[in-house]
Amino acid sequence: LSNSTEANASAFLAACRAAIGESQVLTAEGDKHRFERDFWNQYRGRAAAVLRPGATEEVARIAALAAAHGIALVPQGGNTGLVNGGVPDASGAEVVLSLERMNKVRAIDASGDHMIVEAGCVLDAVQQAAAEAGRFFPLAMGSSGSCRIGGNLSTNAGGINVLRYGMARDLVLGLEVVLADGSVLDLLRPLRKDNTGYDLKQLFIGAEGTLGIITAAALRLVAIPRERVTAWLAVERPEDAIALFKRSRDSFGELISAFEMLCAPGVELAVAELPNVQRPVERRTPWYVLMDVAWMFESGLRARVEATLAEFLEAGLCIDGAIAETEAQRANMWRIREGQSEAASKHGYIIRSDVTVPIAEIPKLLSEIDSWRGRIPDEVTVLPFGHVGDGNLHVNFLVPAPRAQELYDPLLERLYDTVDRLRGSISAEHGIGRAKRRAVWARKPGAALELSARIKRALDPSNRLNPGVVIDPSEL
Amino acid sequence: LSNSTEANASAFLAACRAAIGESQVLTAEGDKHRFERDFWNQYRGRAAAVLRPGATEEVARIAALAAAHGIALVPQGGNTGLVNGGVPDASGAEVVLSLERMNKVRAIDASGDHMIVEAGCVLDAVQQAAAEAGRFFPLAMGSSGSCRIGGNLSTNAGGINVLRYGMARDLVLGLEVVLADGSVLDLLRPLRKDNTGYDLKQLFIGAEGTLGIITAAALRLVAIPRERVTAWLAVERPEDAIALFKRSRDSFGELISAFEMLCAPGVELAVAELPNVQRPVERRTPWYVLMDVAWMFESGLRARVEATLAEFLEAGLCIDGAIAETEAQRANMWRIREGQSEAASKHGYIIRSDVTVPIAEIPKLLSEIDSWRGRIPDEVTVLPFGHVGDGNLHVNFLVPAPRAQELYDPLLERLYDTVDRLRGSISAEHGIGRAKRRAVWARKPGAALELSARIKRALDPSNRLNPGVVIDPSEL
Repeated sequence: LSNSTEANASAFLAACRAAIGESQVLTAEGDKHRFERDFWNQYRGRAAAVLRPGATEEVARIAALAAAHGIALVPQGGNTGLVNGGVPDASGAEVVLSLERMNKVRAIDASGDHMIVEAGCVLDAVQQAAAEAGRFFPLAMGSSGSCRIGGNLSTNAGGINVLRYGMARDLVLGLEVVLADGSVLDLLRPLRKDNTGYDLKQLFIGAEGTLGIITAAALRLVAIPRERVTAWLAVERPEDAIALFKRSRDSFGELISAFEMLCAPGVELAVAELPNVQRPVERRTPWYVLMDVAWMFESGLRARVEATLAEFLEAGLCIDGAIAETEAQRANMWRIREGQSEAASKHGYIIRSDVTVPIAEIPKLLSEIDSWRGRIPDEVTVLPFGHVGDGNLHVNFLVPAPRAQELYDPLLERLYDTVDRLRGSISAEHGIGRAKRRAVWARKPGAALELSARIKRALDPSNRLNPGVVIDPSEL
Repeated sequence: LSNSTEANASAFLAACRAAIGESQVLTAEGDKHRFERDFWNQYRGRAAAVLRPGATEEVARIAALAAAHGIALVPQGGNTGLVNGGVPDASGAEVVLSLERMNKVRAIDASGDHMIVEAGCVLDAVQQAAAEAGRFFPLAMGSSGSCRIGGNLSTNAGGINVLRYGMARDLVLGLEVVLADGSVLDLLRPLRKDNTGYDLKQLFIGAEGTLGIITAAALRLVAIPRERVTAWLAVERPEDAIALFKRSRDSFGELISAFEMLCAPGVELAVAELPNVQRPVERRTPWYVLMDVAWMFESGLRARVEATLAEFLEAGLCIDGAIAETEAQRANMWRIREGQSEAASKHGYIIRSDVTVPIAEIPKLLSEIDSWRGRIPDEVTVLPFGHVGDGNLHVNFLVPAPRAQELYDPLLERLYDTVDRLRGSISAEHGIGRAKRRAVWARKPGAALELSARIKRALDPSNRLNPGVVIDPSEL
């Protein structure tokens, strides 16, 4: 860094210390470390400093100072993102703005079915606060103990209940956002219906902190489902899983909260590697389905699921099946699903992906991947699993760690080309971040890139909010 | 109009004739008339011409020509809007771009739960096509025989199923949009999950044609509910209606499709004025509730609703109640709800409104309105009704026709001030259009107006798409 750049950064940090307190401006290497690396320890950036504001006004003050000093800010929540969108670049010039101290539940209105929370609330805590008020906040995913709601909204997180309740976007009633110039946009009215102009909050949901910094949100709550039935089905082919999904959807409609598919190698790894995990059904088949159905009534759903399962078995759509009899059995089934990456990572490096195709194209996608055998190295194990019900598969590649770097781009590019040909998306729920920027824009229509750049310029004309993430207007 | 302006308009229309065909450029007064007046015949503008393109490329061509000639375009669907957002201003210089000839269902994928339709499809036809494919498209409202899906999306329409299925926005998977410069933005991939960058389609939903022209949409379909139970409840107070809603929501959760409240004077007018309409329960009370509950199963729901109704009666939350025994009885109940304006309009002029407040504030809003007695003229009858379940009330004022103009602004301003104080919205589902522009922006935070203007300028720098609707950047 040049002397004048360095002097400018020092002046910025001095002003920040005055604004938010000495102790909330971290510059020591050891203090910064956990904010600079990604969740999986696969990426490491360098930050000039980490700022930990405790209130919206402090975030606004920092943004105004950053604008005045020309400093780039990287907003960060729980740092559980999977595309390096919340960690700084390698320059050492960017400043991480951590929202983790802003973790208050500002208000909860059970009868109005909403709550207002600060961006730094951990997802588990949001769910917990809703539950204590007798309501249900449906956003849920494996990282819920660490991810924070501001990050969930900034990445439009998906998770395991999308089929029924939608993405994070669908659960937002209002937002409070600090803009690039330090002004505060108060869009927090908790209304289900409000057509007074452009729906500005939509701009910031899924924008990964590149258009503004989400500091608080009004979230939609729903009724608590009282009876939940979890079933595990063993099937021969992906086509069967999809047929099962269609039939289940016709029978149970929106009562299906999750419909997940897992491949045999992934299940075997989970059973072998994860402590206390049991095989849900003895019969071994190439594919398995995990289905969650729930409703508001106390009872009666289990019998309906059992009857449907019997029909499936009779029709030969599934080979075997089990319904969880206890909470422990349910937890076991879900542990296999959520532990897919953890189990595989004991055997090598995981090259992760997160793609969607129209549901009808899932078998085509999987058979195409199958046909790569012989064309990709034998040491690559393909482990597809995910949310069949919404067309979203995590096609993970387990590779020997020493070959990870060399195989990373070729495997993903091959996958992305296939997905693109099937009119899918190469980032279903993880976002773009730094990791997928080139891969995404290489495949998007030019008009979409051009318009995205216009939006970026309109909201962040100096490219100071999370530069290099999602879009780089200078690359146009 | 000056000579040069007139020459320019002539050149534009000549180019349009060449682009979309002589017969699709209407300039005769008689031909233009139905495109210039609003649905209720309360507003009349003047158009230089009406253009009726038949394909996306023709819309793109028109937009490019309009950009080149500096012509303002007013996109129009079924012209059933209630805020004069789809009709031209009084200048005679604007050109209406009617999408009504673009009415094809391009594709329907029942197993993938989506369909792709052109903007000019009538809502009834969209519902019908979905039903024929064994699926359900849940957007529904009184005007479904005339309104068109492009208009529904451009206004983010609400309607009677919002409680369960959300607003029009929530049913959109993708859009095709013609931008101000005539470029076509293809965002039609029918994916439930796609986090590859800013969700650009959100910009155009609810923007009333001011940021781009929606030419086609990928819509989300759901399972057809097989058993539907409709109940009519007689209650003493709005508080009771809200208590009933909360209890029903806890019991039935997302199975509630509609929860509507009606006032006694509105119901009496409907019974008196609408042909073949019967009183659903004999007992007369100040308020009534109309509730629709549905699920995917063939049977079993009715018994549950009956049991809940019995509990309500026992708890004294409702005074009387009936469940529709036949389709005719159900239709009768809904006719009372949907005929509220039609019945009242036989007794004078209706000053319409469309407001939301947080649900808990509904009784406060209604008692405040009640307290206006003595402060507003005696000839004003207040007829509130609407979607209690999402906090959205249509507080209509029935006034003697000769006093309509004089009472219009004072009554609405009084209502809007009250709604704003209760942290509500003065346009829940109808939009801003021309009618509410000043009322909306007078009450919004400055940062929201400023950001909206930045978005407008980024997408329509010459202010040529529906100028004067939603926002007028020159007023800043």
